[in-house]
Parts: sequence; C-alpha cells; structure tokens
Amino acid sequence: VQICYVIPGPMSDAVGDAELARREEMLRSWAAPDVDVRVQDLPTGPASIESIYEEQLAVPPLVDALPSLEAEGVDALIVGCFDDPGVDALRELAQRMLVVGPGAAALHVASLLGGSFGIVTVPNPTATRKLVLTERLDVRFVDVGLVDIPVLRLRDDIEATFEAMTEAGQALVARGAETIVLGCMSMAFLDVEHELGARLGVPVINPAKVALGVAELLVRAGQMPSRATFPPPPKLTEQAESAR
Amino acid sequence: VQICYVIPGPMSDAVGDAELARREEMLRSWAAPDVDVRVQDLPTGPASIESIYEEQLAVPPLVDALPSLEAEGVDALIVGCFDDPGVDALRELAQRMLVVGPGAAALHVASLLGGSFGIVTVPNPTATRKLVLTERLDVRFVDVGLVDIPVLRLRDDIEATFEAMTEAGQALVARGAETIVLGCMSMAFLDVEHELGARLGVPVINPAKVALGVAELLVRAGQMPSRATFPPPPKLTEQAESAR
Amino acid sequence: VQICYVIPGPMSDAVGDAELARREEMLRSWAAPDVDVRVQDLPTGPASIESIYEEQLAVPPLVDALPSLEAEGVDALIVGCFDDPGVDALRELAQRMLVVGPGAAALHVASLLGGSFGIVTVPNPTATRKLVLTERLDVRFVDVGLVDIPVLRLRDDIEATFEAMTEAGQALVARGAETIVLGCMSMAFLDVEHELGARLGVPVINPAKVALGVAELLVRAGQMPSRATFPPPPKLTEQAESAR
Amino acid sequence: VQICYVIPGPMSDAVGDAELARREEMLRSWAAPDVDVRVQDLPTGPASIESIYEEQLAVPPLVDALPSLEAEGVDALIVGCFDDPGVDALRELAQRMLVVGPGAAALHVASLLGGSFGIVTVPNPTATRKLVLTERLDVRFVDVGLVDIPVLRLRDDIEATFEAMTEAGQALVARGAETIVLGCMSMAFLDVEHELGARLGVPVINPAKVALGVAELLVRAGQMPSRATFPPPPKLTEQAESAR
Amino acid sequence: VQICYVIPGPMSDAVGDAELARREEMLRSWAAPDVDVRVQDLPTGPASIESIYEEQLAVPPLVDALPSLEAEGVDALIVGCFDDPGVDALRELAQRMLVVGPGAAALHVASLLGGSFGIVTVPNPTATRKLVLTERLDVRFVDVGLVDIPVLRLRDDIEATFEAMTEAGQALVARGAETIVLGCMSMAFLDVEHELGARLGVPVINPAKVALGVAELLVRAGQMPSRATFPPPPKLTEQAESAR
Amino acid sequence: VQICYVIPGPMSDAVGDAELARREEMLRSWAAPDVDVRVQDLPTGPASIESIYEEQLAVPPLVDALPSLEAEGVDALIVGCFDDPGVDALRELAQRMLVVGPGAAALHVASLLGGSFGIVTVPNPTATRKLVLTERLDVRFVDVGLVDIPVLRLRDDIEATFEAMTEAGQALVARGAETIVLGCMSMAFLDVEHELGARLGVPVINPAKVALGVAELLVRAGQMPSRATFPPPPKLTEQAESAR
Repeated sequence: VQICYVIPGPMSDAVGDAELARREEMLRSWAAPDVDVRVQDLPTGPASIESIYEEQLAVPPLVDALPSLEAEGVDALIVGCFDDPGVDALRELAQRMLVVGPGAAALHVASLLGGSFGIVTVPNPTATRKLVLTERLDVRFVDVGLVDIPVLRLRDDIEATFEAMTEAGQALVARGAETIVLGCMSMAFLDVEHELGARLGVPVINPAKVALGVAELLVRAGQMPSRATFPPPPKLTEQAESAR
Repeated sequence: VQICYVIPGPMSDAVGDAELARREEMLRSWAAPDVDVRVQDLPTGPASIESIYEEQLAVPPLVDALPSLEAEGVDALIVGCFDDPGVDALRELAQRMLVVGPGAAALHVASLLGGSFGIVTVPNPTATRKLVLTERLDVRFVDVGLVDIPVLRLRDDIEATFEAMTEAGQALVARGAETIVLGCMSMAFLDVEHELGARLGVPVINPAKVALGVAELLVRAGQMPSRATFPPPPKLTEQAESAR
Repeated sequence: VQICYVIPGPMSDAVGDAELARREEMLRSWAAPDVDVRVQDLPTGPASIESIYEEQLAVPPLVDALPSLEAEGVDALIVGCFDDPGVDALRELAQRMLVVGPGAAALHVASLLGGSFGIVTVPNPTATRKLVLTERLDVRFVDVGLVDIPVLRLRDDIEATFEAMTEAGQALVARGAETIVLGCMSMAFLDVEHELGARLGVPVINPAKVALGVAELLVRAGQMPSRATFPPPPKLTEQAESAR
Repeated sequence: VQICYVIPGPMSDAVGDAELARREEMLRSWAAPDVDVRVQDLPTGPASIESIYEEQLAVPPLVDALPSLEAEGVDALIVGCFDDPGVDALRELAQRMLVVGPGAAALHVASLLGGSFGIVTVPNPTATRKLVLTERLDVRFVDVGLVDIPVLRLRDDIEATFEAMTEAGQALVARGAETIVLGCMSMAFLDVEHELGARLGVPVINPAKVALGVAELLVRAGQMPSRATFPPPPKLTEQAESAR
Repeated sequence: VQICYVIPGPMSDAVGDAELARREEMLRSWAAPDVDVRVQDLPTGPASIESIYEEQLAVPPLVDALPSLEAEGVDALIVGCFDDPGVDALRELAQRMLVVGPGAAALHVASLLGGSFGIVTVPNPTATRKLVLTERLDVRFVDVGLVDIPVLRLRDDIEATFEAMTEAGQALVARGAETIVLGCMSMAFLDVEHELGARLGVPVINPAKVALGVAELLVRAGQMPSRATFPPPPKLTEQAESAR
Repeated sequence: VQICYVIPGPMSDAVGDAELARREEMLRSWAAPDVDVRVQDLPTGPASIESIYEEQLAVPPLVDALPSLEAEGVDALIVGCFDDPGVDALRELAQRMLVVGPGAAALHVASLLGGSFGIVTVPNPTATRKLVLTERLDVRFVDVGLVDIPVLRLRDDIEATFEAMTEAGQALVARGAETIVLGCMSMAFLDVEHELGARLGVPVINPAKVALGVAELLVRAGQMPSRATFPPPPKLTEQAESAR
C-alpha cells in the first residue's frame, strides 16, 4: 500500500525540510508494516492555510501534482489540510488513485467514538463549519474552539500551545462535546492527542492518524469514491475520447 | 449603484463579444434606473464550469480581478456562476465592495415564493447539492433535474433546450417542487423563465435577475457580509499593518 | 413600481399621523428613484402586536383592505408586522398583487450575509420562533434576544431602547450569532441598524428596508408566489366562476 | 371532566343540527364514563375550512367564545379543525381552561405508533404542511395525499369518499408511510379509520378520537400548556391589573 | 380497560412490596373510573436501570412475561422504565396487547404543551439521548439535567432529591426549556411534578401519568402499533404456521 | 493487533463449523499482515437475527463472553451483526478492549465515499432505520431495499441472492443513492460487493471489511470510545470499589 501525504504549499521553505521528514517519520510509525508513506510539499501555494482565500490558492498546485502521483502508482493521496481543500476536484480528476481528506475522515471517526464532537482549531472557522455541513454532521457538532496562534508558530512554544488547546477543549467539553477533533494538521503532528485526551477526559482525534488509517482501510477494501458523486469533468472526458 | 457581473473565465473567446454585450443589455433592462451594470469576463479560467475542478480553476482569476474592481469604485460584484465559486474567498478579501453569489441569492428568493424548490441545471450536480447544504436549505430541496447539454451549446438549439428544461422541471414539480430555480447562468440568460413557469404552473427563478436585485437591495441598504463569517485573511492583515 | 406598506391596525390613533408620515418618508428615502411607496394603517385591528392573539386580530382587517389596494394597481403590499401575520392568506386571495412579509424577507437576507442569525425583538417570542420554523431556517437560528419595552413606547426614550437592543444583541453575538435581525417594525423605523451593527461587530438587518428591497426585486423580476403553495380558496373560485 | 368540542363556524347552518348531534354522540361513545363532552358550533366564521384564508376567519369567533366557556367551567376546549387554527392564541388567552388542537395531537400520537406518517386530507395542504413543521415532525412526514372532494360533500357519497381515501392512503403507504393520519375532521367523523386501516395494512389515526383522549389525559394529569410558550398578552394583563 | 405496569426487574426484593403497592395505588388514583391498573415486577432482571447494560438485561425477563399477560387479557402493558427498554421487541411479539413506553409517551406529550423540553434524570444519559433521537424529537430537546443520586436512594431524602431536581430543572429552563420531562420512573412516583412545576414556572411532565393516559387513549381508540414498523419475527411466524 | 469477530449466537449449529472457518479465512485475507483475526460464535443466542426481538436476545450472550475475551488480550471485538446489537452495553462494560459495530462503521465509511447511501438488507428494517437515526445519518439515507430471503438461506442459491441484491440496489440508485451499504453480515461474507458495484455503477460497502479496517485503525491510533458517552455502569463500579 503506497500512500502520499501532500502538503498543498511550499511548507519546506517556511519551516525547513526537517519538519517534513519529522512528519513522514511519524506517519510511518503509525502505519501497518506493509504500508509505504511519504510526505511531499508543493512548489507553489500558500505557506499555511488560515483563510478560505488560502484554501482556494492551494487547489491548483494540487491539481498539477495529481498526474505524476498517479503515474508513480500511488494508491492514495491524503490532502494535508484539515478543511479538505481540493478533495472533490481531485476525486473528479483521479483515474485510479484514492483521494482522502483528513477533515471528513476525522469527523466520521469521531462519530464512531461518541455522540458529539467539538473541534479545536486555529482561526478562521468558516471553512471548518462548512465542512461539517457538507459532511452533514452538524447535528453532532458542538462548536469550534479557537487557539489564537498562527499555524506556523504552533511549535514555537509547544507548552503554551498545549495550554491553549486544553483551554479550548475544556470549554467544548463543558458545552457537551463527547469527543474532540483537532482541526489543524500542524496540531495533529504535535502528537499530543493522548495527553490532551487524558486532561479532557474524552477522546481527542488526530486527523493525520485517522486519515492514514482511512486511506489504508479503503485501499485494502478496494473502495473508491462514488462516480455518481464525483464524475470525471465532461470536457476532459471528451478531449480524452477525441485524442484516442 | 455600480454593479459588475464577472464571468470567471474567457467566455468571449468561446462565444464571442456579442454574447457578453447581449447579457449586459439584459441586465441593464432588469435594473432600476439609477443602477449601472456592466459585464466583464476574465483573461484566464475555464471556458465554462461543468465540474468542481473547473469551479476551482475559476477562483484565482476572480481573486486577481478583485483589487482593480474595488479601486474603480464598483459597489457590488456578482460572480457569474450559479455554484458561487470564490464568493467566500472574495468576501474575505474585499474591503468595501459587496460580493454576491447568484446561487445563494436564487435559493433564498425561491424560499420566499414557495415551500420547496427543485433546480433545473446541467451536470454535474455535486457542487449544486453542496451549495444547497451550505445555504442550509436542504430541507426545502426536492432534487436537481438535469438537462444533458453542454453549457456552451445551450443556445445552439434553444427550442430543444427549452423542451429539455420543461421535461426536467415537470419531473421535479411532480415530485413536489413548488418553485423551480434555474441552476446555470447560461440558462438564466435565455430569458425564458416566465414562459417556462407558465408551462410548469409554478414560478421559475432566474438567478441572474435575482442576483442583480439582491445586489441592488444590499447596496441600497448599506449591508455587507458579516466579518464574523468572512474575516480578512490574517497574513494579509499582518502584511498591511507592517506596511504602514 | 407601486408599493404599499400596510400597518395592520389603527396605529395613527395610538401614535399620531406624524409617525406614519415619518415612516413613509424613510421608506421613500430607501427606495429606487422609480418606486412609489406609501404607508397606510387600517381602521380596525390591534394597536400594536405583542402576542399571537393580536397577530390573529390583525388578519381580518388586512383581508378587508386587499381588494381596494389591488384595484388601485398597487404592485406589492408589505404587511407591516415582523411575524408576517396574514401573508399566506393574502397570497391565496391576491390576484395580481404581490404580498411580502418583512420577517421572512429579513431572515433570508440575513442568511445571505452570514452563517447564523439572532433576532432582537420585543416579547413574546413564540410567533417569531414559529416563523423561523416555517421559513425552515431554525438550523441558522441562535435565539431571540428580548427588549422588554412595550412596542408603542420604544421611541419614548430612544437611548434606553438602543442600550437594551445593544445588550440583547451582544448576548446573541457571544452565543454565535454572525448577524442580527431586528424582529420588530418599530425597531426597524428607529433607523439605528448601522450604529448598532458598528457596536456589535456584525451586520444588523432592518426588516423594513429589506422588505422594501425584496418587494422591488420581485416586482422588477415579475415573480409571484407559487400557486402550488398558495392556491385561491376553492369556495371563492367557485363563486367567481358561478358569477360569470 | 368537562370537554367542549367547538366547530369554528356556523356548521349547523350548512349541514343541519342533526350532524352536530351525531358528532356529539360519537364523541360521548369514545370517552371514559366520567367525561362529559359536548359539541358546539359558532354563529360566525367560515362554513368549512379549505384554505388558510378561512382558517384565519375562524379565529376571531373562537376568541369571542372563549370567556363564556371558561366561565361555565369547561375543562378542555378542542378546536374542531385539523390545522389547529387559533390554538396558540386561545392558549395565551385562557386562564384555567386547556385548549387542544386535533392536528398536533394526532401527529404526535401517530408518532407513538410507527416511524413515519402520511396525511390523507382535502386540499389545500399548505396549512397542514406548516402544522407538521411547527410540530417539528417533518422528519417523520411522508406527504399529504389529497381527496379532492369539498369538505361539506364528503358525506354525500360515503363510498366514493372511502374509495378516494383508500387510494390516497395506498399511495402514501407505498412511499413509506407506516401510519396514516386523517387530516380533516369531517373525515374523522365518518368513523371509518379501522376499516381503512384494515385495507391499508397500517394504523389510521382519527384526530377526533385522539384529541378527545389527549384532552382527557391532560385534564386528569393536571397539565396545562407552558406559560413560557404561551404567555398572556401583555396589554390584556396590564388592563386586568389596572382594573384591580 | 386493563392495564399492567411492569417493572422490569425484582424491585420488590430491593425496596419491598410496599413500594409496589404504593405505586399501584397512585396509578389507580390517576386512572379513569373504568380502568383497572396493576403493578407487577419480574423475578429476574436488574435491581434498577442506570446504564445501557442494565437496560439490555431487562429485556429477556420482559419477553418471558409477555405471553401470560396476553393470556390474562391485559389490554396494555406499560414498561416501567423511562428509556423504554424492550418496547420494540415486545411490540413485534405481542399479538393483541398494546405495549407502551413511558419515555416516548412523555416526550410527545411534552411536545403538545410547549416548544422545547429538557429532561431531569439520573445518570447515565446516553440511552435517554438515543430515545430522543429515535423519537426524532432532538430538534425540541434542550439537554438532560442530571440528579446524581442512585435510583434506589431517591426516596431516602426526598427533600434533598427535590432540591437537586429543582436545580437541574432551573438550569434547563435558563437554557430555553419550555417544559421539563422527568426522565426516571422513580422520580415520577415521587408525585412532585406540580410542586416542581410551580417552582420552575413551566409544566413538569410525569411519565407514569402520561404513559397511563396514553395507554387508556390508545385502548379506547382501538389503536395498535403499526405492523409495518413492528412485524412479527419471521422465524416465530414460520414456527406458528408449521405448528398449525 | 488482535481482533475477534464474534457472531452473537450458535451459528455453527445452524450452518456448520466450515462456514465460520470460511469467514475467518476471508477476514484474514483482508487484514494487514500484523493483524490476527479470529471468528467465534456463542453457545446461546438466536440462530440468526431478523427482528428486534432476536437482536435483544443476542445481547446477554455477548455480555457473558466479554470478560474472557478481555482477559485473553483481544484488542478489538467486532459484533457480528449489522444492527450493532449490544455495542453500547459492551462499551460501558469493557475496560481495555475496543468494541466495534459493523453497521455504524459501514454507514460512516459510505459517507466518506459519496453524498448519500441506500442499504440493501433482509427484513425487518426497523432496527436498521433506528441505527441510521442514532448514527444521525438520516439526512444521507435514501431507504432500505429488501431482499426477501431468510438470512440462513442466502447462500443456498447465490445467483438468486445476487439477482435480488442487484434489483434492490438498482431501485435505490434510481432514487438517488450514490453508494450502497450491505446491511447484513451474511451478505457481506458472500464477497460480491465489487461485482455488485460494477453492476450498479456505485460503490458497494462490505460491512465486514469495513468493520475490520475501522477496528485496525482505532487500535493503531490508540483510540477508545468516549467515557462521556459510555461510562461504566455505576453499580458495577461501586462493587469493584468495595471489593478492593
């Protein structure tokens, strides 16, 4: 099973190659023995995603990266942003490769562990709220709890970040959240979800782990997204047909 | 009141300048006497939007076009695609200009005229379904009814198009649609909604007319989208502040 | 475009003709140059509407007023009460005249500006809650925030009223309201929504302005309510037919 | 236990006193031995209710009838129309008397017998649909099935009526209705629900029987509607206080 | 009308026969004069139900008790636990006997008295939340308010219990509950709902009274649960057929 | 990773040990190389589950089997029935072992592959419908499609079964199902989902594969169900404490 975790922007420029290597190592440690995972960032796109505007900027580079990943025989591509930018478009375009969004994966797995969830994330929450709506899990959704630290500075003072996450999580649990989902991949790679869960008294879902697990599961089961939901773009189909 | 209707792609290349002029004239004829409307297409982007992939391609050119429109003093920008691509991102970025999506506008106006709506549109419907979900009007939504003609060929045989629209609309009315929304701007500019409504026995909503009316209404009322929903992207705000 | 704003009760008896003239002037100032708006109250009905009981009392006078307004060629009637009493009945009865309710109009326009809304209004909220339900916007609804001042005394101490509205609005924003709707027409005609919006940090929707704009929009677009939703009462149709 | 079933209009003028006596006798036969039921119509109001317009006309006579019924010591008033016109207003006004609507009662009792319901009724269905929404049972609601016979002629040819009801019911059962509610009081007093249920293979709910049972249940349990939902109209309370 | 209230476990072992006799007397005092009610506990099953695990243990003894109750001509069996354990299974198995769950009955009756409800109960709330979901009344549901006293000790210090119930109820009313449902049968038989309602200012629903009233109502109306929802188990039907 | 798939009843008596061995082999072939899966049935319980009654009978044997499985160090128990009987109770009772229900797992995984799902299953559907409700996925649910063959005879004529499944699936796809879930574990172990998916043109989800994958995923991620949702039964906790 070959899985590629794609960060939709030039993150190595912003935080260095070591951080990507660190993430790749973590993913490998979480995977089954027969799974090959790698992490890749993209030459263009936003440095980090903290707005719907940046989410939109992330899509064209993902689209550009798709064909070579498919050609290399990658089984599943995980889009490395919680709000799942571009996942629908990539699913339309992909021919044999599975595309997984960590946001949708984490919300549904949280639903398998408790009755309701809250999401601890960074501003701005509108994209996350819309993901909850399109996944149709708003009936289980308590609220977002915001940690007001820029994404690229979350690791600068991990203790302060952890305190802020704890505070945001506790407020959500007090309002009825029976599970907490981390709504930011840079939070996910802090690898603190079990420590945070112990403090909060409820499971904390790591979207990176869960996206990896869902990708494995679907590849092993031979399951692909529905073509009724994500048909190939008609103009591309036509071109492909006339090229034959 | 200055309104600019922006077609997110090089439509004039595909169908000629005359079609843009025709659409501009129609919009002018629908507007109040003190409203100045113009139609503009963009140098890059998809020729037409028939997939989520093309929707995503339409956003960067819209983002690029925003500053000059704001600088020219345009009061409201209407995004010329029913599924409202880029509207959220543009609302984050706009400083004084209102951004209106015809899809959301048409669905809420339909809701003011009857208890339920169906949407007559071209494939593929997933983006339209997601718009219904994020507008939170799925409880009023009967279904989409598809007219299987490529967007750029809808005007080739208007009679055939009208017949196909009638058939799709009748099926939706039979399933309980108390109003019909046209879910494609090229259908809107056929200007056949009253004729179709007479055939179907229920109102047919033209998203171009309605988006224009909603833009007028909001400009006159001095209403802008909520900054709680669409805050400016933090990195841009920071840059702007450090540039001062 | 001829629009008549009808206050469903003898308001001039309670607060004097000057108040009606003031409201008419405000409406004129908000309208497009080719729109003719007038305000009219009715000889019978409740002095103000602060209960479902009074709402019901307001309907027969509205029904009585309908035929002459239609005969005069009025294009659109706006029912001057936020909870939209009688709108459905008037739509069944009207033959060519559009009937608009400010409550439904304001809730849907608020939905075009942000993800959720709260309603600042006077007691009692049950009718307002039911309007939210029948408009099917409960999924966007945070709550009502009550200003405990009788409707007819809202202008006695405008500053105190504004403070109470601010407090009610702030509580709703703290609970997640991304927009605020004024749920009382006497509040709407205080014309303070922009000042209140500046204090609250979110848009405040004036139902009088919005109802006017929606009436204009629908008249220009030639759109009428669905006859599938609001058919003419069968016994009246029969009478009309047998009278022919 | 004293219960009064009030028909909101001069039905005896339309169909004669015998029909009222027949209905009273039926209600008595359905009640517990210690329950005293009577049927009463009102001097004004619509002859029958087949539109929202007529529903609204029915309310003022009901309001007028309330004080004397309360003075006579009636424990519970049942409003004799399925769409529950005036129930909310009467609940605001009543001081000690319970007010029951047969529509809400029947929908909730149907919900105790099966997972979903359909409603067999006469046109026009918008008021019935709105009742389903305000009772918040739309998630259980399959659809209305219409019997196109004027209310006052349902008994003219009972066999034809029964056939039409059967057909409407079968179509709803085929679409998933696990119970059927009769949505018209004149259908209820045909007393055919068990025969119809045997044909359809699912329970058929008689709203007259159920409203009676619910009224009994609530009177015995000493339960009244919530004053948080139905507070007394403030102006009346003020008058009552200043009169003291 | 013969009604049997069955406590699904050996409660007399835990609290003595007197408590069962006390409950039977209360039920008799609430019933119509022609109703014969008795209370019965079962030889096996949990001593009290405070978990989903105990709920499940309660079902086989209920199933075992069913045939003899049916043979004795009991018209309706009320399952004496608020979360309605076994009701669906018993409905599948019963041939002529009505089975009523007090939880579903109380939630629907609360819905007839106000717009929203909260539930005052003992831990653990997951089963209660699931009942609200399967009754599809989550849209009216504010929350559970927990009284942290073991079920079998609720009567040890009735004043303390009443204070804890008041506190839990007040918190729910402050959050918008327009009615309160008691979510535990041992609370119901404290017979304090009117006193509690007076304190809280909203109706408090006693599930024992309401289940009794609903059972009466359905027996008098000759209504049984839908066989479309609760068909007889196919293997039992087959056995019965081959035994013939 | 040790996983035990438990069939809640004496299935080997009904269909022989070979069938259990066959299922175990299939599960092994689907699992990652480091996963150890075994299949076990139980000495008591129903022969198959085709009613809510039989579902309830399946729970006590599952409860009895739990402690020894935990003692043996099993990481995850999969309950071998689509409607997930006993999962909530087992989660309350389990101390370190994960409990997974194939129904919930399959519905959430289907939600990751398409916008809506239908369920092809055997009668009776009420338990399946309730699972959809408690998983809160009713908004994505099209309907159940029934294959009217007894569970234990599904393999008697596999071709006939496959035809019936195809027909049921096609009807659901025609009504808008974008994915199909197999709602019966004996269907799952026919291992025909890809062949069926090819016929239907949409993904067909095998609940056995998916439950296995979800169990793996959660064990690797170290995730357990929320104790806020599934707390240990208080009386057992008390006993355990007083035993210390």
